[in-house]
Amino acid sequence: MADARACAYSYLYETSSLCDYEIATDLLASRIGLAMHDVKHSDLKFLVELVYHANGSMRGKCAITEEDLKMCNDLYEDYLEKVGPCKMFVLPCGCRGASVLHCLRSETKSIIRILAKIDCEPNRVKNKNIHQFFNLLSNLFFLMALYENKQENVKESEFVSKSYEC
Amino acid sequence: MADARACAYSYLYETSSLCDYEIATDLLASRIGLAMHDVKHSDLKFLVELVYHANGSMRGKCAITEEDLKMCNDLYEDYLEKVGPCKMFVLPCGCRGASVLHCLRSETKSIIRILAKIDCEPNRVKNKNIHQFFNLLSNLFFLMALYENKQENVKESEFVSKSYEC
Amino acid sequence: MADARACAYSYLYETSSLCDYEIATDLLASRIGLAMHDVKHSDLKFLVELVYHANGSMRGKCAITEEDLKMCNDLYEDYLEKVGPCKMFVLPCGCRGASVLHCLRSETKSIIRILAKIDCEPNRVKNKNIHQFFNLLSNLFFLMALYENKQENVKESEFVSKSYEC
Repeated sequence: MADARACAYSYLYETSSLCDYEIATDLLASRIGLAMHDVKHSDLKFLVELVYHANGSMRGKCAITEEDLKMCNDLYEDYLEKVGPCKMFVLPCGCRGASVLHCLRSETKSIIRILAKIDCEPNRVKNKNIHQFFNLLSNLFFLMALYENKQENVKESEFVSKSYEC
Repeated sequence: MADARACAYSYLYETSSLCDYEIATDLLASRIGLAMHDVKHSDLKFLVELVYHANGSMRGKCAITEEDLKMCNDLYEDYLEKVGPCKMFVLPCGCRGASVLHCLRSETKSIIRILAKIDCEPNRVKNKNIHQFFNLLSNLFFLMALYENKQENVKESEFVSKSYEC
Repeated sequence: MADARACAYSYLYETSSLCDYEIATDLLASRIGLAMHDVKHSDLKFLVELVYHANGSMRGKCAITEEDLKMCNDLYEDYLEKVGPCKMFVLPCGCRGASVLHCLRSETKSIIRILAKIDCEPNRVKNKNIHQFFNLLSNLFFLMALYENKQENVKESEFVSKSYEC
């Protein structure tokens, strides 16, 4: 087995968290690809590609541009207008599409944790576009989840924390 | 983008594993919300809420009470009675609902690993209720998986390890 | 609660990454068990069992044999013949089965990252069979994804990175 099949990815044995970032973003892109089968009211295809561009943007040249961020930002505005401001904490459930989107929202946050780790490694300069992209993406998935429930006539379930009550 | 959308979660950049715990429990709650669509013979809704209470219980006031633990414990007894003691190792598969519950069971265990890490951080006191809750929850998901297969007339597949054979 | 239910797994509180490996492989086996419901053109059942044998192979006796590796290798050859060499980068999506297999492919790579960590712990000898197994498995899932799309008449979407362009 001296060929490519014996190695799933060239950087698997490096000590930097860069490789963890690349695996996590590859997984997120795959999960978005899967989510496309369950989410009915949002088109996610362009996000699979955008996350793959983010995937290469920490080791290679940053491929998430100001235009990409503006596009995500405009999309965020659109969804915010569609669902209105959410004034309570909600349980991460509802119709299947909303549930899938809540999972994506959480998984996106764990990528930002890896980014924060990479930023502390020697000779790294913080890649602001990538940070902005994933923070925005996580929030976008949240709005998409609300929208999915709204379109399916599923009411959000409020969550009232007993940990932070007055 | 000077507003909330540029930040997916306030604690994403802290060094403590507390934030990882919060992301992992948020994800687990979301996955339980999703599992509700595939698990036919157990009601999981109250667990979404309970995991969200656990989510806030490490940084804020502990919201998993003795009563919550007793309720989970009683539920464990119920399922144990329904499925009977499992005297062999089983492969984590079967009907779709059982498969989903096996995934939840494993994901719950990885949360306990994060708890163990947090316990080693300075000035932390072990939160026994939270440890008990997630250990119990993982075992509860296991019994629910057995129950789901039983209700769907799917026979468990025994697994005989070659690593620990006599 | 002085019985087994209070403990989800005996090694949850050890500091070695061995336990993380065991949780991650348990989860992968569970996810393969779940994938069996969505993947139409490949039989994954034997992989659930094989991954469970790999699960015990780092702490106990190695249960992934040369014969197992040869079998996976032959399977890899079969799929390669079925789908032909893939000469472009593809987006990790397509039919539901392919999407699920892409997720498995990524999750398998994150197991290799844990293996790499364990190898750096004191008194560990690299378990070459286990490394080979998971590298091969990740690549096998990739070919299975291509095959799933091919059988469902779904064309792959090329991905052209802007990070590494000439």
